Amino acid sequence: MGPLKNLKVLDLTRVLAGPYCTMVLGDLGADIIKVEMPIKGDDSRHFGPYQNGESAYFMSLNRNKRSIVLNLKDEKQKDVLKELVKNVDVIVENYRPGTMEKLGLGYDILKEINPKIIYAAASGFGHSGPYSTRPAYDGVVQAMGGIMSITGSEGGKPTRVGPSVGDITAGLFTAIGILAALTNLRETGQGQKVDVAMLDCQVAILENAIARYVVSGESPKPAGNKHSSIVPFEPFNTKDGEIMIAVGNDAIWSRFCKVTELEKLIEDERFKINPNRNKNYKVLKPLIDEQIIKKTTKEWIEIFNEVGVPNGPINNIEMVLNDDQVKARNMIIDVDHPKAGSLKMPGVPIKMSETQGDIRRPAPLLGEHTEDILREVLNYTDEDIKKFNN
Amino acid sequence: MGPLKNLKVLDLTRVLAGPYCTMVLGDLGADIIKVEMPIKGDDSRHFGPYQNGESAYFMSLNRNKRSIVLNLKDEKQKDVLKELVKNVDVIVENYRPGTMEKLGLGYDILKEINPKIIYAAASGFGHSGPYSTRPAYDGVVQAMGGIMSITGSEGGKPTRVGPSVGDITAGLFTAIGILAALTNLRETGQGQKVDVAMLDCQVAILENAIARYVVSGESPKPAGNKHSSIVPFEPFNTKDGEIMIAVGNDAIWSRFCKVTELEKLIEDERFKINPNRNKNYKVLKPLIDEQIIKKTTKEWIEIFNEVGVPNGPINNIEMVLNDDQVKARNMIIDVDHPKAGSLKMPGVPIKMSETQGDIRRPAPLLGEHTEDILREVLNYTDEDIKKFNN
Repeated sequence: MGPLKNLKVLDLTRVLAGPYCTMVLGDLGADIIKVEMPIKGDDSRHFGPYQNGESAYFMSLNRNKRSIVLNLKDEKQKDVLKELVKNVDVIVENYRPGTMEKLGLGYDILKEINPKIIYAAASGFGHSGPYSTRPAYDGVVQAMGGIMSITGSEGGKPTRVGPSVGDITAGLFTAIGILAALTNLRETGQGQKVDVAMLDCQVAILENAIARYVVSGESPKPAGNKHSSIVPFEPFNTKDGEIMIAVGNDAIWSRFCKVTELEKLIEDERFKINPNRNKNYKVLKPLIDEQIIKKTTKEWIEIFNEVGVPNGPINNIEMVLNDDQVKARNMIIDVDHPKAGSLKMPGVPIKMSETQGDIRRPAPLLGEHTEDILREVLNYTDEDIKKFNN
Repeated sequence: MGPLKNLKVLDLTRVLAGPYCTMVLGDLGADIIKVEMPIKGDDSRHFGPYQNGESAYFMSLNRNKRSIVLNLKDEKQKDVLKELVKNVDVIVENYRPGTMEKLGLGYDILKEINPKIIYAAASGFGHSGPYSTRPAYDGVVQAMGGIMSITGSEGGKPTRVGPSVGDITAGLFTAIGILAALTNLRETGQGQKVDVAMLDCQVAILENAIARYVVSGESPKPAGNKHSSIVPFEPFNTKDGEIMIAVGNDAIWSRFCKVTELEKLIEDERFKINPNRNKNYKVLKPLIDEQIIKKTTKEWIEIFNEVGVPNGPINNIEMVLNDDQVKARNMIIDVDHPKAGSLKMPGVPIKMSETQGDIRRPAPLLGEHTEDILREVLNYTDEDIKKFNN
């Protein structure tokens, strides 16, 4: 059972940033009560691909959650939500700022109901500032946040990162904000609002790009697959494909040369230390190309691993799923779903010695746990359930 | 003051994944005691770019931390580290698995010294499995984890993501693991080890790529900047540049058509709903191209924001730093460093209503706080300090 097994989370999120956050908390043992609108539910229930009519997209992101259907535009059902707020530790939403206020469910109202509540909001631009109420999607935030401008082939156009890192990093930072707020709550008894913007998170992960800009005055550009200052540190063509080689320091360089029949380069002043390899890159690159093309990717992997030269294949998704390390770490798991059958999805990447999180249940059907939750959290009787359903 | 103001973290990390994790904790108020080796310190002190001789790379990642120099290969100084372990809540390291054990500082030994310690390790491949002890760099992990295989121009080669998302996501998951372990510690009194692998984290952020593969049996490929199933959802050329447009649903489509002189398309069956726009993409794309090229990026941004069509410029780093929303959210801050002077770096992306984190101090000089920490945490007297220095 995970470390958050006593945490109750009311989850009003949809699609990706919010559901990713609550998935991480649920994977660590939290009880995630997912509130969905009638009929349609979470929009991502209608995103492909489908397996036996169920969205694989939705199922991957909503394991370990229970679903209760509440119509938040109906006053009586809104009151039920407020009752739930009294009985949970955390509420998470990823509506456009202002939406919860329009529903009469803004933080100011909910904190009156439960002063200890941690109210977390993930949004495109955040709950303050001039763009606050603008709609956003991952593509927009990747464009505006700078990550596209430094991703892509050398000399090429800004390129979107394949996975939706705009949503996912916001989900991760929101999870961190919630757990930090809980630490403070335990010490002070004080609840609070946590406000995370996808755009802010993009700025926070720009890594050395900001430093490079402020020091040089020039915006970095897409640099392809080559490291900006370390050589050799990029993919090379092998007899049957490609291999990523990362010669991170001069000791590795020496080991690299010994196994690639380039021993004569070890003492060559042009290549002896990394700054020189960088300077003489155009002379060096063809010398390495000539050697790496001689063997297969698999052969090189064995040779480099033997001597400790960091390297790896450029895996496609099928190869990732079949990788020995990925399998040994339980990073691909099969989850049985009552309608969809067995579905493969990522495992839990946080490995803990005493309280390992796990997948306790598949993604819920829409409203699958409405009655259970009303009975368990709000002590509804059969009579109450009947009234609720009318 | 941040929500983690009572948390003490002993930080043995270097370069990126580990330091990113402890930066996030430090930004939220934790006291980060960074242990560095004599003379050289954190490797990234020697990574460019430099400002007045100080590494901007290092300074961006190590704000809010104090530095103590300890030689972990010296038995006496190792004993000092063990004394510190008794007095902190968390220890974080990102050595290659096995290194801490070789130093005689493995989890098994440290938990004897402090049974409540949370011991967090971020590594390339994790502390178990066949690749565990292999060296890794971000490029290797991006290659092996699949993200490169789905990033890049359509029909093009696998492309590395600009920022080191292999390191950064591992840093974020490690922070989440630590905070979750602390929750469990408070409830049970039990410390534990948290083991996060960069490769595992790459698998965890593949988003819908795994679902697409398992349902179709085909590995997704780089798809350029176009959304895989929503149209229009990509950058378009304007009179003076590009603009990202994200027509996420049919209501937005109607608003989009009205302001782009494409009103006639709203009721056109070929384009009325998204699946049809997807099917007739090749007919539709030129019709949109023809309109968007007529105005500047700035003009379109105003028009689209007026009516609520998600959009944004493709900002380079300079534009990100000057963006009104980024500025309004304090996402670029100036930090004064005693040697480097004023340096711009990302702000704190987690905004909290009651306990906002902040930048309390610049990155430390090597060993700047050795004496302070010995006096404050271990109650060293002048006499003890003298002995320590001899």
